[in-house]
Amino acid sequence: MSCAFECRMARFAYITMKKGNTLFFKTRPRVRSYAAVCGSKEKEGVIGGYADVTLSDDMYGESTYEKAECKMLSAAVSLAVEKSGLTDGDIDVLFSGDLLNQIISASFAARDFQFPFLGLYSACSTMSEGMLLSAVLVDGGFAVNCVAATGSHFASAERQYRYPLELGCTRPPQSQWTVTGAGACVVSRGAGNIAINSATLGRVRDWGVTDVNNMGAAMAPAAADTILRHFEDTGRGPEDYDMIITGDLGALGSRILKDLMWEKGCDVSDNHVDCGEIVYNVIEDEFQGGSGAGCSAVVMNSYIFTKMDAGLYKRVLFAATGALLSTVSSGQGESIPGISHAVEFERLPPAKE
Amino acid sequence: MSCAFECRMARFAYITMKKGNTLFFKTRPRVRSYAAVCGSKEKEGVIGGYADVTLSDDMYGESTYEKAECKMLSAAVSLAVEKSGLTDGDIDVLFSGDLLNQIISASFAARDFQFPFLGLYSACSTMSEGMLLSAVLVDGGFAVNCVAATGSHFASAERQYRYPLELGCTRPPQSQWTVTGAGACVVSRGAGNIAINSATLGRVRDWGVTDVNNMGAAMAPAAADTILRHFEDTGRGPEDYDMIITGDLGALGSRILKDLMWEKGCDVSDNHVDCGEIVYNVIEDEFQGGSGAGCSAVVMNSYIFTKMDAGLYKRVLFAATGALLSTVSSGQGESIPGISHAVEFERLPPAKE
Repeated sequence: MSCAFECRMARFAYITMKKGNTLFFKTRPRVRSYAAVCGSKEKEGVIGGYADVTLSDDMYGESTYEKAECKMLSAAVSLAVEKSGLTDGDIDVLFSGDLLNQIISASFAARDFQFPFLGLYSACSTMSEGMLLSAVLVDGGFAVNCVAATGSHFASAERQYRYPLELGCTRPPQSQWTVTGAGACVVSRGAGNIAINSATLGRVRDWGVTDVNNMGAAMAPAAADTILRHFEDTGRGPEDYDMIITGDLGALGSRILKDLMWEKGCDVSDNHVDCGEIVYNVIEDEFQGGSGAGCSAVVMNSYIFTKMDAGLYKRVLFAATGALLSTVSSGQGESIPGISHAVEFERLPPAKE
Repeated sequence: MSCAFECRMARFAYITMKKGNTLFFKTRPRVRSYAAVCGSKEKEGVIGGYADVTLSDDMYGESTYEKAECKMLSAAVSLAVEKSGLTDGDIDVLFSGDLLNQIISASFAARDFQFPFLGLYSACSTMSEGMLLSAVLVDGGFAVNCVAATGSHFASAERQYRYPLELGCTRPPQSQWTVTGAGACVVSRGAGNIAINSATLGRVRDWGVTDVNNMGAAMAPAAADTILRHFEDTGRGPEDYDMIITGDLGALGSRILKDLMWEKGCDVSDNHVDCGEIVYNVIEDEFQGGSGAGCSAVVMNSYIFTKMDAGLYKRVLFAATGALLSTVSSGQGESIPGISHAVEFERLPPAKE
């Protein structure tokens, strides 16, 4: 047996990452608690009955949109910690990020807490990046309780990425509406009904989309890439999941994802759901549905986890999706690469009394 | 023995995180290789003889500053992987981030590679956040080879955070000069002379500094907090380190750090070095020295690691420092919180033949 072969064998014996970049968590870290705060428009939709706090005024008592966004994120983290029965002193680290320049919502929210903060940026896939890194720290024995959180605000996102609201610009039909909301969950060692079994790391995929109003098309190839690698590594298929949830592809992006998957011989049409597509009940000016880091954060940390807790879904694959652009990159003619990190959740059978 | 006490004991038996938020890495992941690219002004300084690529033109053959920054980062990652003797296929994940809005340099650099990408934002402490998360993945058995990388560019940072260069604004004496450069290192399991023993996670500290030209003052409290917690958790003191290296406090910020540490009964004046303070040889218009995510990235990944490899420094504590602000947060009257993540490196004795 050659040395190189032995080394390779040793590598595979030791690490838990499969060739398609899927991590398997031996101790199966649990979602110990979760919380979501959402805005007034989101309250009317599917998550209205599940979110912990629903705002009647999206300013949330603050003087600016950015401060309101930060306050929502901070509230979601506080609520998740409170619902877990833990105190701030039990939390080992907060993973958070948001869409604002220099992730100021997350940084300023982290100022409210005494535990450490690791800042992330993965656009609208920040929720799953935070969940997977939390699971890594807990499974690796580096932490007992981690918090993963993110959020977004329609008005702060419009101001930063698009036009001042006061201009009253019309929106093209392929556009989405940034969700006002924040979600957080506490990922812990061995306390909770929902286990994190595995996670597939995202790769940057760029199919040359340059339309900044068509995020769904820009992100769909990344979601397809990650979900297909997840299936390859786990030896499973769409039928093994009650739900395959993407982040914020929207209605159009979801169609593209299903097409791309179908071309690869994988039919997800029966159990694919997109958080952006379901977050608003009535489609008016939000066209393709919701978007933003807060979109999948609120849907997962209210509606989905509640349903899983109730035993309605057993196995869920959550692939949040992010579009990696800035106004500068698009202004300089760059295309919009996408990324998607996936996390596999499983509802455990109730413990025997 | 109460259940709560047993749980607490079980917790401490299992996790490697000490109460001050220090992670101890049992397998001591290694810095397998490192690479740095620096600009023309930086070439004249201490790192000039150590960087792998020194630019004669800071545009690096690109049409915009942002594209030049991205190219530097991509080149640093490629060089680090090449010097490690590995191929792209051996890399399990890239941790990277930068100072530009929506970390476009890191995202677009990641597009050049086929391995997964986890985006970070921790301002100028991104280098140590990337190194510590790389060590977590390797030590936890989730990966064999990770790359941590970051960079910055003077001209893109000025354009985004301050004024157009064409305005020719004067700079106040407390200001620093954003380093043009990028650094990357490959963190691996068991191959290399430099081991990562531990890392202390940063907490957001805010002492109310609002002067956007005085980053050193804003970040010094966070650096002091992290270094003191590191000493507490490891039971060591400044004398146990050949060097205690901060990221980019600059000359003024370094004085503040030394004062803050001295007030806590900890004298680091003998072995504290700041990357920002040493990166430029001649202080002209850079006043307090260098800054930017690239500052500590190039100094660590050229000068420091080369000296460690040569056996000149045995134990080094690297505490990169970040100022968590955006033009929007400062414009809205917010203060500037700081953060600092620390990583402990040790030069291992040469293996016996």
